[in-house]
Amino acid sequence: MVGTNLDPFSDRYAERTHGMNVSEVRALFAVASRPEVVSLAGGSPFVSALPFDAVGSMIDELVRNQGAQALQYCVGQGDLRLRELICQMMALEGISASAENVVVTVGSQQALNIVARVFIDPGDVILAEAPSYVGALSAFMASQADIVHVAMDDDGLIPAALAEAITAVRASGRTIKFLYTIPNFHNPGGVTLAEHRRDEILQICRDAGVLVLEDNPYGLLGFDSEPSRALRARDEDNVIYLGSFSKTFASGLRVGWVLAPHAIREKLVLISEAEILCPPTFSQFIVAEYLTTQPWQQQLKVFRELYRERRDAMLDALGDMFPAGCTWTVPSGGFYVWVTVPEGLDTKAMQPLAVSERVAYVPGIGFYADGNGRRNMRLSYCLPPPERIREGVRRLAGVLEQQLELVETFGPSAFQATSPGDGPRSWISGPSADQV
Amino acid sequence: MVGTNLDPFSDRYAERTHGMNVSEVRALFAVASRPEVVSLAGGSPFVSALPFDAVGSMIDELVRNQGAQALQYCVGQGDLRLRELICQMMALEGISASAENVVVTVGSQQALNIVARVFIDPGDVILAEAPSYVGALSAFMASQADIVHVAMDDDGLIPAALAEAITAVRASGRTIKFLYTIPNFHNPGGVTLAEHRRDEILQICRDAGVLVLEDNPYGLLGFDSEPSRALRARDEDNVIYLGSFSKTFASGLRVGWVLAPHAIREKLVLISEAEILCPPTFSQFIVAEYLTTQPWQQQLKVFRELYRERRDAMLDALGDMFPAGCTWTVPSGGFYVWVTVPEGLDTKAMQPLAVSERVAYVPGIGFYADGNGRRNMRLSYCLPPPERIREGVRRLAGVLEQQLELVETFGPSAFQATSPGDGPRSWISGPSADQV
Repeated sequence: MVGTNLDPFSDRYAERTHGMNVSEVRALFAVASRPEVVSLAGGSPFVSALPFDAVGSMIDELVRNQGAQALQYCVGQGDLRLRELICQMMALEGISASAENVVVTVGSQQALNIVARVFIDPGDVILAEAPSYVGALSAFMASQADIVHVAMDDDGLIPAALAEAITAVRASGRTIKFLYTIPNFHNPGGVTLAEHRRDEILQICRDAGVLVLEDNPYGLLGFDSEPSRALRARDEDNVIYLGSFSKTFASGLRVGWVLAPHAIREKLVLISEAEILCPPTFSQFIVAEYLTTQPWQQQLKVFRELYRERRDAMLDALGDMFPAGCTWTVPSGGFYVWVTVPEGLDTKAMQPLAVSERVAYVPGIGFYADGNGRRNMRLSYCLPPPERIREGVRRLAGVLEQQLELVETFGPSAFQATSPGDGPRSWISGPSADQV
Repeated sequence: MVGTNLDPFSDRYAERTHGMNVSEVRALFAVASRPEVVSLAGGSPFVSALPFDAVGSMIDELVRNQGAQALQYCVGQGDLRLRELICQMMALEGISASAENVVVTVGSQQALNIVARVFIDPGDVILAEAPSYVGALSAFMASQADIVHVAMDDDGLIPAALAEAITAVRASGRTIKFLYTIPNFHNPGGVTLAEHRRDEILQICRDAGVLVLEDNPYGLLGFDSEPSRALRARDEDNVIYLGSFSKTFASGLRVGWVLAPHAIREKLVLISEAEILCPPTFSQFIVAEYLTTQPWQQQLKVFRELYRERRDAMLDALGDMFPAGCTWTVPSGGFYVWVTVPEGLDTKAMQPLAVSERVAYVPGIGFYADGNGRRNMRLSYCLPPPERIREGVRRLAGVLEQQLELVETFGPSAFQATSPGDGPRSWISGPSADQV
């Protein structure tokens, strides 16, 4: 980092901050947020589909009638009424749970963070899909974990790969604290863990004494079917479950939750109180009011239809315009498509050119702790309308064609000067809202 | 902790959770929240003094006109418009700052937590007043700090005691990461750092190369004078400043901030993103709207008058009713009076009796990391109206009289069976909202 040697505090920071720096990617994203750029980068939900008039009136009433409670501190575990409503919501995925074991958090990012702090000592291993959510990697690494990636395919996490990874890590003498997995509409992978693999994965973990951390922000945003039965619904003793209202209602409220076995839940509350005292009371009251007074299931349907249309627009555009040799996943819900580009291309090195061509994406390396992902990019279809998605894909296709020509002319070394390989990283910069 | 041996995960938790347990005090506070109990325990602001109708309408407008931004993710550092308004607010205390160096946090508790995580390795020393804010101790201990307390008197932190503590800690071979101080209307001490000591304290820290963490949630809630000039206003290179809207507007929004030298600020943002992705956008937009469209300075005056009246009610009641041998501080702002009871009494042992007599307070030991504080209690006057404060003090005086009689009859050993001495603690349970 330029200027580090001028930092008068450089000898005082904690060990966990080492390797932490402001990524160049950030500066690019600042440019990418200009209106002329089509951003396929962010995971921001399309909140404009909400009925703002009805929500505004509802909140007005809330302040007038319950201001004294809604604007005051609440208990660290979160508002009891909301926790009960959360249990009703989780029942849609087959989960039977008590409000007593739910902890409300500042989005599921804080849930990831408190789980990390309750379990991870420096050097502990966390198993995570390859690729995995950048925000989770970031939370785990802030607790000085080592991430070991486990392969996925179109059916999600591969059971045999998981079993092998557990054996290999243990043979190396290291301790596994948990498996982190996003079973539904994976971020960034776009795939879903197949029904027939779910019990097998859980069995492998139970047999090996490995806890499972199930992250499920998109579970109710499937396009084709009823919600899948959650891992937590199949094993309540060995699964910690994370949920969020960021994608189903409003990300700016920052309300998520964690459901955990009782002994773990007690520790999560104490760490959360040390971190934030209590989650935003006002946001919690708003969510509880929304779930009890507004037609939220109908609104979910609106979101699902809207995202399905955008997913179709993206898949069509990719099929029509992306150069031969590119492949991508076909999500049946959620926000993301994971693209693999032909050998010789480097999605990180290519990014500045893409931004100059007025299209943004997230390079694959952000989703790996081991430096992989240079041939991948995450494209999201959640925020721009279909015609903008098509235009973005068109611009990106142009960039890819240009790069492929360069590679054909000069060979893959064309990129090596500007883009040294990344090894394992001690810190994943991010997440920013662009990488959610 | 009862049942620990039944916890199937007991061998998997991180080192930092050791010693963490649910304090008995918590169970008592649950009882203390019953309406028949006068709570002099909590630090909850009297939000009912806010004009709920005006605030409700303001928020309704906000959702209708700016819903797409207000309900969406924002940047991890916090909304720029709010950060600029925060700089204007800090100018009231003589601070000149750029929005670029402000990080918005989930209340100042999260600010304490991210500062802790940026600086503290296990075993590092944090200097803190004796007593100090329980939430800060909790955040520092969650990063495995050792707390070394420094004496205060009625003029706040004692410069000579600070200089001695620095020398002693260094002689023991340990590293001091910063001095944590609440200069104005101390929580729980109720005292204010005298004007003539401010530059001296800063000079001692600068000379010794010790960073200063200035926590100032109550600075604008002084009863008798203009706001004091902040430590940050006197030394911008060596002071990290924390502020909050919890006491001046609404605690349930969870909006605080940290102002830090640039190099530190960059790291704070990265840790904050790993913890919560971004602070609640909606809360931030509400605060920004409030500061630009509502008469907030006039509302502050309403709060000051209200708290002054309650402070007076408490001091009068203490003078009228507390038994001889009790002493207390006289706050000129903020929420708290710090009481010292006669030798032989034990405020922790006495607490269940007090609750059964329908009055609650926070025992002094919560505010020390070294087991001190058994002859102290924190009384807060922020939430109950004057006549309830008087009634609470009356009940508490009765409990004290009763205890004093026991001590006279049986000697101080009357309490020793039920209340073993606490040594240094590795974890401070809390804060709960009752201990803010």
